[in-house]
Amino acid sequence: MYTLYGFSGSGNCYKPKLLLTHLGEAFNWVEVDTRKGETRTPEYLALNANGKVPLLKLDDGRCLAESNAILCYLAEGTTYLPQDRWQRAQTMQWLFFEQNNHEPSIAEARHISKFLPADNPRRAHLPRLHERGYTALGVMEKHLAKQPFFSGNYSIADIALYAYTHVANEGGFDLRGYPMVRAWLARVRAQPGHTPMH
Amino acid sequence: MYTLYGFSGSGNCYKPKLLLTHLGEAFNWVEVDTRKGETRTPEYLALNANGKVPLLKLDDGRCLAESNAILCYLAEGTTYLPQDRWQRAQTMQWLFFEQNNHEPSIAEARHISKFLPADNPRRAHLPRLHERGYTALGVMEKHLAKQPFFSGNYSIADIALYAYTHVANEGGFDLRGYPMVRAWLARVRAQPGHTPMH
Repeated sequence: MYTLYGFSGSGNCYKPKLLLTHLGEAFNWVEVDTRKGETRTPEYLALNANGKVPLLKLDDGRCLAESNAILCYLAEGTTYLPQDRWQRAQTMQWLFFEQNNHEPSIAEARHISKFLPADNPRRAHLPRLHERGYTALGVMEKHLAKQPFFSGNYSIADIALYAYTHVANEGGFDLRGYPMVRAWLARVRAQPGHTPMH
Repeated sequence: MYTLYGFSGSGNCYKPKLLLTHLGEAFNWVEVDTRKGETRTPEYLALNANGKVPLLKLDDGRCLAESNAILCYLAEGTTYLPQDRWQRAQTMQWLFFEQNNHEPSIAEARHISKFLPADNPRRAHLPRLHERGYTALGVMEKHLAKQPFFSGNYSIADIALYAYTHVANEGGFDLRGYPMVRAWLARVRAQPGHTPMH
């Protein structure tokens, strides 16, 4: 059985949890509280030298890090990763967009707003993060005006982008101007086997 | 024949150029100067709504964005993307590490140092970017102490990480304390069909 090390407040950790639930795979969830330094202990760093969650551990002890790499691994051979080469390329495009454009702005703004004290100096980054996050949301809005999901049918690209978009309000983002994104969020929630973040 | 839209000063754009050269695939290179706003024209945004380079265009006009998604697409079925499922998962792990940890610190520091005026306010970000970049380099150093390449043989994980590591000095990084990283840079340069960035 898979073991998933994760912090339940993290969208990155929610991604593999949501996919495993869709797949009907049982798994052990090990709660790791990043706020208490639990990803920086020698024991945890021996599992993941990068000191981050989520982390997927196989029965034989091998470990895989990076939320979207875990999604790719678990989705292989399932409908959540397209068989068609070009559709799969599109899925990968959106997975990298998520980790390079979307997560560093939208998840970071949420982290600062939700988890750091009101006087934390990182709050000064919020205007820049909001600007970048709204740019990412604009790219998504434009794409979703053309198709219901990011790469063909519902896939790990949708799972990855859903994770922090559906809680973007916690980072101070207002989705009222993004009707296509809001309709897509509802379509993701309506998928069979959907499970909420908490 | 593939068309690659890229800015020759960009490590992200160098990645697919290096892979295509390894593969012996001819391609057209279209220089797009991001500093002159050439990724923000209506014509370019029609190709890539995210307004970034690199962009791979197929003969039939279909376009693929995100440097590491382009690497995955081009490497399919070649030795640059492992056939073994677990090794492929490791490759993906390092590709996402590159886009979420390495590139946002090391490439951003280089961009600020190399391309922005000395009085640009973004220079204030450099200490934080250096801290994050050295953390990423430390993770690489530790991994390369155990194996010569990132995921088995030389792969797209090495190509992706080489792109900005080999010019990290231009962002103010000093690799003297990273002997494993420096030895790996030399191994990458020694690969058959290697081509320099410029």
